[in-house]
Amino acid sequence: MPNNPQIILDNRPVAEATLSNFKLVTRETPDLQDGQVLVQHHFLSLDPYMRGRMNDAKSYTAPQALGEVMGGGTVGEVVESRSPLFTPGDRVVGMGGWQTYSVVDAATPGALRKVDTTHVPLSYYLGAVGMPGVTAWYGFNKIIEAQPGQTVVVSAATGAVGSAFAALAKTRRCRVVGIAGGPAKCQYATKELGFDACIDYKLHTDAAALSSALKAVCPDGIDGYFENVGGMVLDAVMLRMNDFGRIALCGMIAGYDGKPVPMNYPALILRSRLKIQGFIVSEHMDLWPEALQELAMLVATGKLQPRESVAQGLTAAPEAFLGLLKGKNFGKQIVKLI
Amino acid sequence: MPNNPQIILDNRPVAEATLSNFKLVTRETPDLQDGQVLVQHHFLSLDPYMRGRMNDAKSYTAPQALGEVMGGGTVGEVVESRSPLFTPGDRVVGMGGWQTYSVVDAATPGALRKVDTTHVPLSYYLGAVGMPGVTAWYGFNKIIEAQPGQTVVVSAATGAVGSAFAALAKTRRCRVVGIAGGPAKCQYATKELGFDACIDYKLHTDAAALSSALKAVCPDGIDGYFENVGGMVLDAVMLRMNDFGRIALCGMIAGYDGKPVPMNYPALILRSRLKIQGFIVSEHMDLWPEALQELAMLVATGKLQPRESVAQGLTAAPEAFLGLLKGKNFGKQIVKLI
Repeated sequence: MPNNPQIILDNRPVAEATLSNFKLVTRETPDLQDGQVLVQHHFLSLDPYMRGRMNDAKSYTAPQALGEVMGGGTVGEVVESRSPLFTPGDRVVGMGGWQTYSVVDAATPGALRKVDTTHVPLSYYLGAVGMPGVTAWYGFNKIIEAQPGQTVVVSAATGAVGSAFAALAKTRRCRVVGIAGGPAKCQYATKELGFDACIDYKLHTDAAALSSALKAVCPDGIDGYFENVGGMVLDAVMLRMNDFGRIALCGMIAGYDGKPVPMNYPALILRSRLKIQGFIVSEHMDLWPEALQELAMLVATGKLQPRESVAQGLTAAPEAFLGLLKGKNFGKQIVKLI
Repeated sequence: MPNNPQIILDNRPVAEATLSNFKLVTRETPDLQDGQVLVQHHFLSLDPYMRGRMNDAKSYTAPQALGEVMGGGTVGEVVESRSPLFTPGDRVVGMGGWQTYSVVDAATPGALRKVDTTHVPLSYYLGAVGMPGVTAWYGFNKIIEAQPGQTVVVSAATGAVGSAFAALAKTRRCRVVGIAGGPAKCQYATKELGFDACIDYKLHTDAAALSSALKAVCPDGIDGYFENVGGMVLDAVMLRMNDFGRIALCGMIAGYDGKPVPMNYPALILRSRLKIQGFIVSEHMDLWPEALQELAMLVATGKLQPRESVAQGLTAAPEAFLGLLKGKNFGKQIVKLI
């Protein structure tokens, strides 16, 4: 069996995560048992939730174990199979982690899923037609429930979730406004991703200024907000929410790295009768088939053309991941292995 | 027509509300027109929402107008009628404001409602069988939706909303824990109002300490929280919320008077997949009949025995109101006029 280079969590961050938290090791790939398949990874997914797992704290997922390979989504190819469910050459999506190969019990529900790469590029199953896409779908359809003509806003607009959110919002005939960092991302959001407007939060130093900028592009207020960052951006949006607005909360990048960031105007929840709801998309697996079908259709018809940030090679993963936490990626952050 | 002593809003508070914001005046009661009735008030209701209306700021109700009588709920007796809908002697609940008499257009929907005082004392229609009771009912049934055996918590536990909440929770076989200020209130909550436990928040100087105290009396965590105060209490409860917990937010006394109070751990909304929802009970009038019927039944059968703080005479209203904002009341705060 081939050697298997992998990135493990060597020690936990004290405040900010750093490169020294990670370590490259090479381990042997074990021989396959009956029912198992060997998958060679083509792309790894890097996602903000991984930062939370690096802490040894109560969270919605168990902490990442020290000395173990960093967990995460992967797409690749079956190269050896001792399961009737898969044959070599199958393109598959799974949770292989930051390594070159994974050995998977093929019969475990949800462990490995065969995908079609005729209409959807393989790597997209980590983004627009994968967990981030379904995340956008769930927040839009099950929490925000926006009606045609309403205004919806999403932060981290050019990321995997944000771009899928925009495509879904446009098919529902909503006005969709993005929040992103820097003029390049904002221009991309409006020119390529279908956003009606996009605000560069880096131009604003406080919530009041960002809120004024939002007012200019949301003349009818904000009915739904998909929150990916927290902190000042959340405060600014809350100041513009219409009565009975809905906020889907699935990320708090601003709070992952270091100390908690407060919400400064919670009285607005009462004043504007808001609903704020947190969710984890992996707890709603029953809805994935419906969501993935719609997302694949949006990609196949060109209505969703997501951008990717591609880091080259396994050893580039830690630095790319740290960059993601600081918003240095532009589009869905992945690592290309072969 | 009789002279009508009344309390008007003379000027707006700069930070804390003070006695000097109010002014006692006496105006003439206008003659009745066709369709109008004259109501003599027996009791005025004092409620925290009135503080919000004293500011000239966006809120869920229009600001209280300067120079006008302070608005608010009243119960009393029809003393003169030029409407076929009411006859002198009728006991009625309405929104008469801080004054001795009110002239009401009897046909305006919701303006005046005849009530039965055989099984429910008249003043209770301002509390347990009125707006505060329906507030508890809505939060419990429509947002928290607690199941038998779950643990629910309410702040301002011995107030009008809190005591109704406890009675509703016990009929649904929930564990119900109160948060109140001082040993007398806490003892009353458990001895008289049916709370399984009550925490004195004044014994704790920060959210972590209060949270530890909550842990001791909520061994299975907290599934639902009815929020009346905000600030440190909200932080402490959020730290103990179970996954998929629900928070009904209908008051933020901590934030009414002066500057906004932050929510310090919003990342918990995501981590514990919470739903937080603000509401205003007057926007759900369709549910009032059902709610009032259940609340009246709880009172009539002795399952809800609310306590009242009674201030004597119209001139006592401003001071009693300021005390309410500081938690000096013990039970539903009302003003007895005759």
